[in-house]
Amino acid sequence: MKLKEIARIVGTEFSGNDIDIVSINTLQNASSNEISFISSSKYIKDIKNTTAGAILVDEKNIKLVPSSCIAIVVQNPYCEVATLSKYFAPKIEDDSLPHAKIGEGSKISDKAEIANGATIGKNCTVLAGVYIGANSKIGDNVILYPNVVVYRDCTVGNNCIIHANTTIGGDGFGFATNKLGEHKKIYQNGNVVIEDDVEIGSSTTIDRAVFGTTYIKKGVRIDNLVQVGHNCEIGEYSVMVSQSGIAGSTKLGRNIVLGGQAAIAGHLEIAPFSTFAARSGITKSIKESGKTFAGFPLMEHRVWLRLQSKIAKLLK
Amino acid sequence: MKLKEIARIVGTEFSGNDIDIVSINTLQNASSNEISFISSSKYIKDIKNTTAGAILVDEKNIKLVPSSCIAIVVQNPYCEVATLSKYFAPKIEDDSLPHAKIGEGSKISDKAEIANGATIGKNCTVLAGVYIGANSKIGDNVILYPNVVVYRDCTVGNNCIIHANTTIGGDGFGFATNKLGEHKKIYQNGNVVIEDDVEIGSSTTIDRAVFGTTYIKKGVRIDNLVQVGHNCEIGEYSVMVSQSGIAGSTKLGRNIVLGGQAAIAGHLEIAPFSTFAARSGITKSIKESGKTFAGFPLMEHRVWLRLQSKIAKLLK
Amino acid sequence: MKLKEIARIVGTEFSGNDIDIVSINTLQNASSNEISFISSSKYIKDIKNTTAGAILVDEKNIKLVPSSCIAIVVQNPYCEVATLSKYFAPKIEDDSLPHAKIGEGSKISDKAEIANGATIGKNCTVLAGVYIGANSKIGDNVILYPNVVVYRDCTVGNNCIIHANTTIGGDGFGFATNKLGEHKKIYQNGNVVIEDDVEIGSSTTIDRAVFGTTYIKKGVRIDNLVQVGHNCEIGEYSVMVSQSGIAGSTKLGRNIVLGGQAAIAGHLEIAPFSTFAARSGITKSIKESGKTFAGFPLMEHRVWLRLQSKIAKLLK
Repeated sequence: MKLKEIARIVGTEFSGNDIDIVSINTLQNASSNEISFISSSKYIKDIKNTTAGAILVDEKNIKLVPSSCIAIVVQNPYCEVATLSKYFAPKIEDDSLPHAKIGEGSKISDKAEIANGATIGKNCTVLAGVYIGANSKIGDNVILYPNVVVYRDCTVGNNCIIHANTTIGGDGFGFATNKLGEHKKIYQNGNVVIEDDVEIGSSTTIDRAVFGTTYIKKGVRIDNLVQVGHNCEIGEYSVMVSQSGIAGSTKLGRNIVLGGQAAIAGHLEIAPFSTFAARSGITKSIKESGKTFAGFPLMEHRVWLRLQSKIAKLLK
Repeated sequence: MKLKEIARIVGTEFSGNDIDIVSINTLQNASSNEISFISSSKYIKDIKNTTAGAILVDEKNIKLVPSSCIAIVVQNPYCEVATLSKYFAPKIEDDSLPHAKIGEGSKISDKAEIANGATIGKNCTVLAGVYIGANSKIGDNVILYPNVVVYRDCTVGNNCIIHANTTIGGDGFGFATNKLGEHKKIYQNGNVVIEDDVEIGSSTTIDRAVFGTTYIKKGVRIDNLVQVGHNCEIGEYSVMVSQSGIAGSTKLGRNIVLGGQAAIAGHLEIAPFSTFAARSGITKSIKESGKTFAGFPLMEHRVWLRLQSKIAKLLK
Repeated sequence: MKLKEIARIVGTEFSGNDIDIVSINTLQNASSNEISFISSSKYIKDIKNTTAGAILVDEKNIKLVPSSCIAIVVQNPYCEVATLSKYFAPKIEDDSLPHAKIGEGSKISDKAEIANGATIGKNCTVLAGVYIGANSKIGDNVILYPNVVVYRDCTVGNNCIIHANTTIGGDGFGFATNKLGEHKKIYQNGNVVIEDDVEIGSSTTIDRAVFGTTYIKKGVRIDNLVQVGHNCEIGEYSVMVSQSGIAGSTKLGRNIVLGGQAAIAGHLEIAPFSTFAARSGITKSIKESGKTFAGFPLMEHRVWLRLQSKIAKLLK
C-alpha cells in the first residue's frame, strides 16, 4: 500500500517521496517498509532507534521523529492504527491459495476443514470438526482432537497434542476507544507459533499477536480453560494450570509454573523457574529467578504464609 | 395451553373461567396470557401491579393475588415452574420450519449447520462447524468463526464478530431443588439478543434467558472465556476482559470495564462508566457512576491501595 | 504385555517367572495382572496391602515390596510410569471396531461423528459437530448440543443434557518432569463416567482419569466453563457454578455447592452438604458435613464476615 494512500485514509498529507508500506508494526520491530505509531509516552524511548519507514504521530511528538522516518501527523495515532489495521488484514479464507498439502501417513477426518494454503505434516491425526486456517502449518506427528480451531497463518510444531474445542490464533483483545466511548477494532494481523513437543488442554484460548507473534516455546504444558493474550511468550517447559490466564505482551522465562486460576498482568517479564501458587495475581515483573510466590497482591510464598497467620491472630 | 390443563399438571384445580396461557414469565413482565409465580418474598412487592393472567402461589400468599389474576395454589410454586417450563419448551430443531434464508453475498461453509427457520443477512462469513439454531437471526456483515454455536431463537446484530468455539444462547443455570436435594431443570425458554457492532472472543458463554432476553448492547467488547449468566444486560460499549463472569439477571450500564477474572453476583445493577480492576468481586449494586473499584469484598480502588499498604505494614 | 518386555523398556531386568500385564494402576487399585509404582512417600502406606502383580520401585524402597509382587527396580519410577503409559494407550480411533449402534428414536445429525465401537441409546438428540469416541456409551433420552466432544471409553447416563462446546474425557494434566525440567506425558488411559440425570453447561471440561475413572454422580449440575480434573468424583446432586474448578483426585460428597470461580485443590475429600461461597479456595479436606465456607484461605462463612469487618475497621 502506498504511504500516500495511507495518509489519505487517515485524513492527512505528508511531504516527501512516496513509499510502499506492507504492514503496521511497533517502533522496536518495524522495518523501513512498515508504518509504526506513538500511542503512549511509555514507548517514546523507542522512537529514537526505530527503523520504521513512517510513523503515525500527533502534533506534540513530531519533533521526536527521526529524519529517516516520514511523520504522518494525526490527532489520535492509536485510533488511526485501528483504522489502518483493517486495510492490512488478510482475507479470512482465500480460494486463490493452493489446496492444502497433507503429509504422508496423516489421517484427516472428512469432517475436518483444512483451508487452502494450509500444510499438514506427516503422521498427524486430525479429528472431526477441526479447522486449520489459510497458510497455517502443522508439523509431524501432531494430534488435533475434535473441534480444535487454528486460525490462519499460525504454526504448530512437531509432536504437539491439542485437545478438543481449543482455539489457537483467535484475535487478541484490541481496540481503540474514542471520546464517545465507542470502540474501533484493531485487526490482529500477527500470528501464533507453537514450537515442538507442546501439549494444550481443552477449551483453551491462545490469541494471535496484533503484530508479530505470540510464542509458545518447546515443551510447554497448558491445561484446560487457560487464556494466553496476544503477543505473549511462554518459555520452554513452562506449565500453566487450568483456568490461569496471561494478559497481552507478557514474556515468561523457561520452566515457569503458573498455578490454577493464577493470572499475570500485561507487558511484564517473568524470570525463569518462577513458581506461582494457585490464584496468584502477578502485576509486576519478576527479576530474580527460582522463587515461589503466592497471593494477590503477590508476595513470596513464605511471606504469604506469615500473613495468613497474622490474619488468623487478628480473628482471635 | 389451557390453564385447566396446567392446573391438572401441577396437581390442583381452580375456580373461574379457563384461559389460554402461552408462556411463563416474571410478575413484572407477565401479560394476561402468561402465568407467573411467587417463589421468594423478594418479589412479593411485584404482585400488586402484575398483569399476569394466572399466578402459581402457595397457601400463605393467596390473599396477595390481585382479583385480575387467577390463583393456582400449590405447595412449592418454584418447583411447579420447573415442571411447567418443560411444557413450554420449544423443540430443539423443527423440521416443519421453512429452510434457512441466506442473504446476498454471504458465504456459508458447507460444514456449517443452519437450522430450519434461521435467517442470515447479507455479506456474512460463516465458517466450518458453526451451528445456527431454529428461528435465530444473524444480521449483515457478520463473521462467525469456526464452531461458534448460536442456539435457537437468538439474534445477532449487524457487523458482529464472534470467535471460535463460543456459545450464544446455551441454557441458563436454572433448577428447583426439592427437600431431598434433587434438582429439577427449569427450561430456559428465553433467548439472547446481541445488538450491532459487538465482538465476542473464543470459548465464551452467553446464556439465554429463562424468560425474556439476555441483552448484549451495541458496541460491547467481550474477551475469551467469559461467562454471562441468563437475563443479564450488558450496556453499550462495555468491556469484559478474559475469564470474567456475571451471574444471572445483573444489569450493567454503558461503558463498564470489568477486568480479567473479575466477577459480579446476580440480580445487581451497575452504574454506567464504572471500572473494576482485575479480579474484583462485586456483590452489591453500584449506584454512582464513573468510579473505579478493586478487591473482594469490593472497595474503591484508592481504598484498596491503602489496604494493601496497611497489610504490608502488618507484615513488618 | 509381558513383564519381561516392560522391564526391557524401562532398562532393567527381574528374576522370577514372567507374567502378563494389562495396564498400570495405583497401589490401592491394581490387580495381579497390573503394574503399579511408588512415586511419593505419601503412598508408601498403600504398598503393604497392594495386590499389584508388579511394582516400579527405586532402590531404597525395594524392601517394602511384598513377596506377592515382582519388584521392577528403576531410578525414577514416576518417569517410567510416563514411559510405559504410552504402551498401554489405546488407539484414538479404531477402524476394526464395529460400526456405532444407534438406539431407536434417536436423531443423529449427519454432521456429528460417532466413532466405531460407540453406542447411543434410545430417543437421543445428537446435534451437528458432536463427536463420540470409540467404545463410549451414551444412555437413553440424552441431548448433546452442537460440538460436544466425548472422548473414547466414556459413559454418559440416561436423561443427561450436555451443552455446546463441552469436552468430556479429555486427557488429565499429567506428566513426569526430569532433572532438566523437561516433561514427559503420562497417557491418561482411564475414562469418565457420568451417571443419570446430569446436566452440564457450555465450554466445560471434565478430564478422563489417568487410571480408573472420573465420576460425575447422579443428578449433578455443572455450569459453564467449569474444570473437573482427572480422577475426581462429584457426589450426587452437587452443584458447580460457572468458572469453578477442581484439581485432580478430589472427592466431593453429595449436595456440595461450589460457588462461581471457587476452586478445590487436588487429593482432598469434601464432606456432603458443604457449601462454598463464590471464589472460595479450598486447600484442606472438609470432614464435617453441612457447613458453609468462604475465602481463601478458607474459613467458615461467619468467620469470613467477621474478618471483613475487622479489615473495614483497619481502614478507618
